Amino acid sequence: MKTYRDIFKWGDKRETTIDKGTINVIKEKFGYADSELEQKHLYGNQEVNLEPQIQLNKEILNHLTEIVGKENIQTDDFSRANHAFGKSYYELLKLRKAEVSTPPDAVIYPRSEDDIVKILNICNKNRIAVTPFGGQSSVTRGVETPKGGISLNLTKHFNKVLDVNEINSIATVQSGMFGPAFEEYLNNYGAKYSCGHFPQSFEYSTVGGWVAAKGAGQASTGYGKIENMILSMKVITPSGIIETKTYPASAQGWDIHQTFIGSEGTLGIITQVTMKIRKYRPENTRYTSFIFKNFESAVNAMRTVMQSGIGVPHLFRISDPEETEIAFKTKNFDGTFADKFLNVLGYKSPERCLMFVAVEGSKSYTNQVISSIKNISKRYKAFSLGASPTKKWLEQRYSSAYLRDPLMDLGIMTDTLETAVMWDNLIPLWSAVRKYLKTREKIVAMVHISHVYENGANLYFTFLSPMKKGDELNEYTEYHKGIIETIQANKGSLSHHHGVGRMLAPWMENELGIESLNLMQAIKDHLDPNGIMNPGNTLGLKP
Amino acid sequence: MKTYRDIFKWGDKRETTIDKGTINVIKEKFGYADSELEQKHLYGNQEVNLEPQIQLNKEILNHLTEIVGKENIQTDDFSRANHAFGKSYYELLKLRKAEVSTPPDAVIYPRSEDDIVKILNICNKNRIAVTPFGGQSSVTRGVETPKGGISLNLTKHFNKVLDVNEINSIATVQSGMFGPAFEEYLNNYGAKYSCGHFPQSFEYSTVGGWVAAKGAGQASTGYGKIENMILSMKVITPSGIIETKTYPASAQGWDIHQTFIGSEGTLGIITQVTMKIRKYRPENTRYTSFIFKNFESAVNAMRTVMQSGIGVPHLFRISDPEETEIAFKTKNFDGTFADKFLNVLGYKSPERCLMFVAVEGSKSYTNQVISSIKNISKRYKAFSLGASPTKKWLEQRYSSAYLRDPLMDLGIMTDTLETAVMWDNLIPLWSAVRKYLKTREKIVAMVHISHVYENGANLYFTFLSPMKKGDELNEYTEYHKGIIETIQANKGSLSHHHGVGRMLAPWMENELGIESLNLMQAIKDHLDPNGIMNPGNTLGLKP
Repeated sequence: MKTYRDIFKWGDKRETTIDKGTINVIKEKFGYADSELEQKHLYGNQEVNLEPQIQLNKEILNHLTEIVGKENIQTDDFSRANHAFGKSYYELLKLRKAEVSTPPDAVIYPRSEDDIVKILNICNKNRIAVTPFGGQSSVTRGVETPKGGISLNLTKHFNKVLDVNEINSIATVQSGMFGPAFEEYLNNYGAKYSCGHFPQSFEYSTVGGWVAAKGAGQASTGYGKIENMILSMKVITPSGIIETKTYPASAQGWDIHQTFIGSEGTLGIITQVTMKIRKYRPENTRYTSFIFKNFESAVNAMRTVMQSGIGVPHLFRISDPEETEIAFKTKNFDGTFADKFLNVLGYKSPERCLMFVAVEGSKSYTNQVISSIKNISKRYKAFSLGASPTKKWLEQRYSSAYLRDPLMDLGIMTDTLETAVMWDNLIPLWSAVRKYLKTREKIVAMVHISHVYENGANLYFTFLSPMKKGDELNEYTEYHKGIIETIQANKGSLSHHHGVGRMLAPWMENELGIESLNLMQAIKDHLDPNGIMNPGNTLGLKP
Repeated sequence: MKTYRDIFKWGDKRETTIDKGTINVIKEKFGYADSELEQKHLYGNQEVNLEPQIQLNKEILNHLTEIVGKENIQTDDFSRANHAFGKSYYELLKLRKAEVSTPPDAVIYPRSEDDIVKILNICNKNRIAVTPFGGQSSVTRGVETPKGGISLNLTKHFNKVLDVNEINSIATVQSGMFGPAFEEYLNNYGAKYSCGHFPQSFEYSTVGGWVAAKGAGQASTGYGKIENMILSMKVITPSGIIETKTYPASAQGWDIHQTFIGSEGTLGIITQVTMKIRKYRPENTRYTSFIFKNFESAVNAMRTVMQSGIGVPHLFRISDPEETEIAFKTKNFDGTFADKFLNVLGYKSPERCLMFVAVEGSKSYTNQVISSIKNISKRYKAFSLGASPTKKWLEQRYSSAYLRDPLMDLGIMTDTLETAVMWDNLIPLWSAVRKYLKTREKIVAMVHISHVYENGANLYFTFLSPMKKGDELNEYTEYHKGIIETIQANKGSLSHHHGVGRMLAPWMENELGIESLNLMQAIKDHLDPNGIMNPGNTLGLKP
């Protein structure tokens, strides 16, 4: 029997339990009694059974089946429900409540670009929605199928590295390849390489998803966001195939391939990309970590590092006071001798802030950057904690996402939102959003900076709060709206790396201005005149 | 009396004479006798006197005059001719021959964005061509006015820095500001800054031109091309005003502002940009230079530097054997004791190659990068020449452009072409183009690499050749065509930083593919539905 839980869980053993430290935080912050920790709220263990019937007519379905073969098309309820949602809190709730009102009619696994061209031709002719599907890790309602149609899953047949060119330091990779497989391939290729892109979703996201959503990895301060890594790509659109050439840089009109980075499936199917790769030399990587007396001094040190021409670290991260406090508690560091010692030195909870640093590259580079960062941090009264906290953080860096399911079982909302902001607006935005978040009585609101630039940084908000049982969707929607509005009012971008999807679409016109949105729409209308690509207001576009 | 020469000369005293070293090269390579060095071929000293009449009707002209005021509109022959061409060899020949067949009807100096909106409204309604005009340094026929209309000169009233934000390390600057004024402003502002963008045309180019043509400066290896520096901009298009917000990065659809970087005036008028600035600390800059035994080893050393994670130099440059030979000759180094010594050591002319390096940033960074580059260069058998050659080169780095006029007076073509290419195609492309260039009997063909990336580099070709008197245009057009075709056949981009203009437009479809060109056209048609912006096939677009 296949259940809704089988859909929303990742299938990773890290998601089955909550660590002791987190349990203690839940008890302390939310007042949970031991008995309440055994809850199985909205557990989602019903069998998947869809009400919505398949809208596609038999003839078309047969035609599609002929193209890809029986083994590459699914129309059963589980497969359809399994392609109806990504992984936002909103979507997870929907699945837990067995509310799948607009699943795709069919899930298709194209074998080749030729298959995709044929499928798009049929869908374009018959106005059938097509939603590209990768690792399903979207947290912006980006892979939902409000217009039904087909979900085009690229992970089965578009999951190979097509070429590695060591002279050029590039790889050409298919869009449906998952992060770990790609990285492992590169780590073992020739002189050993790394893709340099490690989003929180790394384990369950695909290269195509990275590009479509315009993501950023945890080493982005050194290697850049995905848009800085892509040199060329191939995209199949309803209007034709766009394939760009691979150059280190050029000046032959504006860069066409940039149009598809952040297109979120609205313009066509990205089938392959050629991207930069970097030498994999973990033995050269240097780590350090600091504790600062407060958020402001940590932010100022970080900004100074980015603007001093010392080179850049790859991982660069600050946890704000509350995230630092929770980290100390969950790692059972709270109340230890070292904790007391830090308090005596003036690094007091809950004002103090952790900073993590890792630098990749040649030995001389990593040494120079680390020692420059140490010098700058000292000026801002940081206390060095050495390499170990950063290494420990890196070891479990993908794990926190797996807490979502057991926390939701306890009726606790867990969600994240993120923005990019210029340095001078960072502290005001952080304060304003925190103030808003704290309008809920019981709330853990952790903030970190994890992607850093000369001119500003991102702010990443993680919040946990027990919800009113049965009213989660309303409560969440209302709360979420207030956060976005507070971010926009304080000059933050709608998103730094999650993307927009349908979740943030209502704010796009206000964000971009109608002229920019109209330009995006014109591009959409040219490439996808019948509006079949990931329709339903993705990015604020019509239809 | 105002002559055609008054138009094509920069008015810089460096262009009045040819240095002794260059004279010797001309004698040696082209066999010029002393008497021939007194030539004044196609000197262009006729008074400017235009045949083409003004096509704009009086009513419209009056209306335009009302908008900007009499003092900001010119319709005299000299002003019109002065806005009919940029600075390519083709255009300089046209001016020398007094062939100005499609000058603009009027030159307008808008005082404000409001003026521009009004002017575009009138021109859009009446289908009048509008060509944005900055520093006139285009070498791609990018500011020509084949459809007449008006030339919109932004240098008179759009030449100010609007804001410097030291916390964010950004400046907002109007598009008509010239490079030196902008840099001087920044050098003297607050904690002292630099724009970091120094194209060969720096002294006579504007910020808007940098952006519109997608240029690169001589420190681009460290600071990136102009597209890597721009955070946001304001553009007035016939369809409305597009103003993007300033973020360090974002993921809210594809980046709209990137559409205008490389748009070459075809989409609208860029009025201001917000760009990154960097701390100005020349006291930290480190310089070095090397000589390599041959081009291949210099290129391999350069590639190794870029792919080793040692950080990046800012200026990074190799002269190929012929450029190195000419540099030695023109700097009167040829035949000196040091020259002989280098030959004895195995750095033989004409195989040896010069490399220049400068690194900016903090002291520890510049020291580390310089010593890493020295170590790598040693592995490729380079001989260190110390800081002095690079410093000397930097002192005169903008001067070579001023040789064009006195050389053309002698009937010598001087032209440049450039491309970007992946590392594995660099030597084959260089060889093929050189082979083609050498199909002319008397030719000096110098090549350098000046913009370097992890994945490849540019190749910049400078060639000098005596032309058949009276047949220069045909001879040049034919020769130029062959170079482009050789570049394309060897996987080079149409341009790395000069842009496309009308000069390279005929190759755009082959370069991009019809689907990409159609997408560009759709964007053009949306923003400029009546096709008034810089029309006449710029970028290969219609009209």
